[in-house]
Amino acid sequence: MSNIQASLSKTKQEMESVGITDNIRLSDDGNSIVIIDQTRLPGTLEYKNITNLEGAYQAIKKLEVRGAPAIGIFAGYTMYVLSRKDSSLDFDAFYRNFTANREYLNSSRPTAVNLSWALKRMDQVVCDNRDRPVEKIVQLLKEEAIRIHNEDIEMCLKICEYGLSLLKDGDGVLTHCNAGPLATSYGTAQGPFLLAKARGMNIRVFADETRPLLQGARLTAFELQRAGVNVTLICDNMASLVMRNGWINACFVGCDRIAANGDFANKIGTSGVAILAKHYGIPVYSLGPTSTIDMNCPDGDHIRIELRDPDEIRTMWYAQPMAPEDVKCYNPSFDVTDHELLSGIVTEKGIVYPPFDVNLKKLFDEE
Amino acid sequence: MSNIQASLSKTKQEMESVGITDNIRLSDDGNSIVIIDQTRLPGTLEYKNITNLEGAYQAIKKLEVRGAPAIGIFAGYTMYVLSRKDSSLDFDAFYRNFTANREYLNSSRPTAVNLSWALKRMDQVVCDNRDRPVEKIVQLLKEEAIRIHNEDIEMCLKICEYGLSLLKDGDGVLTHCNAGPLATSYGTAQGPFLLAKARGMNIRVFADETRPLLQGARLTAFELQRAGVNVTLICDNMASLVMRNGWINACFVGCDRIAANGDFANKIGTSGVAILAKHYGIPVYSLGPTSTIDMNCPDGDHIRIELRDPDEIRTMWYAQPMAPEDVKCYNPSFDVTDHELLSGIVTEKGIVYPPFDVNLKKLFDEE
Repeated sequence: MSNIQASLSKTKQEMESVGITDNIRLSDDGNSIVIIDQTRLPGTLEYKNITNLEGAYQAIKKLEVRGAPAIGIFAGYTMYVLSRKDSSLDFDAFYRNFTANREYLNSSRPTAVNLSWALKRMDQVVCDNRDRPVEKIVQLLKEEAIRIHNEDIEMCLKICEYGLSLLKDGDGVLTHCNAGPLATSYGTAQGPFLLAKARGMNIRVFADETRPLLQGARLTAFELQRAGVNVTLICDNMASLVMRNGWINACFVGCDRIAANGDFANKIGTSGVAILAKHYGIPVYSLGPTSTIDMNCPDGDHIRIELRDPDEIRTMWYAQPMAPEDVKCYNPSFDVTDHELLSGIVTEKGIVYPPFDVNLKKLFDEE
Repeated sequence: MSNIQASLSKTKQEMESVGITDNIRLSDDGNSIVIIDQTRLPGTLEYKNITNLEGAYQAIKKLEVRGAPAIGIFAGYTMYVLSRKDSSLDFDAFYRNFTANREYLNSSRPTAVNLSWALKRMDQVVCDNRDRPVEKIVQLLKEEAIRIHNEDIEMCLKICEYGLSLLKDGDGVLTHCNAGPLATSYGTAQGPFLLAKARGMNIRVFADETRPLLQGARLTAFELQRAGVNVTLICDNMASLVMRNGWINACFVGCDRIAANGDFANKIGTSGVAILAKHYGIPVYSLGPTSTIDMNCPDGDHIRIELRDPDEIRTMWYAQPMAPEDVKCYNPSFDVTDHELLSGIVTEKGIVYPPFDVNLKKLFDEE
């Protein structure tokens, strides 16, 4: 692991040379957060300045900013920008405003764990420094926001390095949904493809379009193509044939939550990809930070699956409805992949191999 | 099989009591063909009168009529209607017009095997009766068109009966694409669900939306819901979770072409469904007429797979493009399912079980 640590700044430069790694940043004057409006992709790459609370709330709610880590980073910078503009002279007034802003922002997407996590970190900074001048607290908030961002970058870079170590020149990889630099800072599941490109490796990526929200078509295909990666877009139901054709050497997918036995929840369709891969003898890797590992969750059966609006299937994106108006739909946001289908979990601390129940525990015991 | 033969007229009435079985019919005055314009579904159920050659050509080309058997039936009626309107007094003039009409119609969808097959049958009637008065030939053409239609109905009804014999009250079935009465006369892969409904059986159907052309969402969900079948629409990538939930007892899919060893080509995504089903221990049945069995094709590797326009994935149906404008796409129209994944082939001659190489051969030797 020491080699990877030593070369992270080089890795960072390489990623920046090919990928869009400025999805979220503080403006130079510190008065706003500059984001890529993801709702305009893939048609238009538009940077947007977020200057106030309502703009930040809407950016999260309307999915202009999406991806769990990206939302956390955005929330950190937002709390700094709002605090900076606060004209309160005493702490109590400042903290009243801070809390109101924090609570409103937190309500923009109640299920986003990284949102409340980042907001809690920012809150802690204020509480821990309540005896200091407001001006100083604002400075510390800036540092904390940058720290949240930099920690995510470091985590991503390590995952990119470990992920890429699993691939060799000429490999074909199937991927699902989006966990590239648009969703994180520098990318997890799709980050290694950008790093491979920066290093002149030839990796052929097949991106599932990922119905119903089409993150694969709108975001992954966009990111990879823009970086010059050899990417081919397919419908989710084409993965089997692509594997049968002998084009795939590995599957790289993200993870929303990993149970103690290695079962993991990820975007709907992931378990299907893993079952197909097993059938065709192709390894499957889940890439994500150790923060997604929940050792208190014994297995996949304990992961609750959120059901979403049927109109995401029936009408969303379409010029006219493509299904009977009131037909029943089952629209789960993710599914659970059995650990027996998984070849390895790629984290910022290294690659965890089976038996996952033993080796995931080791990962935390070593800390 | 004798029991099924005896009760076909009852089966027919049952299907008509629940399903849209008038997708294609001759108008009462014999001057036009009445079709359901499938391009208006699922929003609008619109019957359309086709009165001339250009209308018929466009109906096929624009997919107002689609489904291999439906196109064959439509072509038969079209040749009769056009011949009936021909004012030629002598055979040579009549046959010149007939041939010109036939060739133009045949060019509307060059890859549709049933189209050229039905047109050949109609042509044979004319050639075999060239010494008879034109008026008599026209009468014989009407009879042949009705015969083509009735043969398809009989085939469908038998497949519906055999298919339904595999299900019991309360079963859940996953299906893919569309092979109901809109695509055939009375339905193959989805026909048994309508028959179950007519008989008061409770079958819960999960219909894959079937990207990119969405036949499952637009047509299967429409047909089944209209018939009162308990249907739930899902995205293709949700099939794995639906199976994991324990909701599926069998998968019913269609078939475009069956090789001598039981490997079969069907709508893209079918092989994925079959692999998932095997993983979860669920039987998979392919339903279709024996005319799709090609004993000259040894196995699936000898079936060529048609590639279609990338814009079916990138832009079709959408209010705005949902993928980068020029991103590469792989868009195969069907895939090949290995015979080892298949539990049985449901034909109008009965259900063929493994070993398919032996039992398919028997099916034809018995003739």
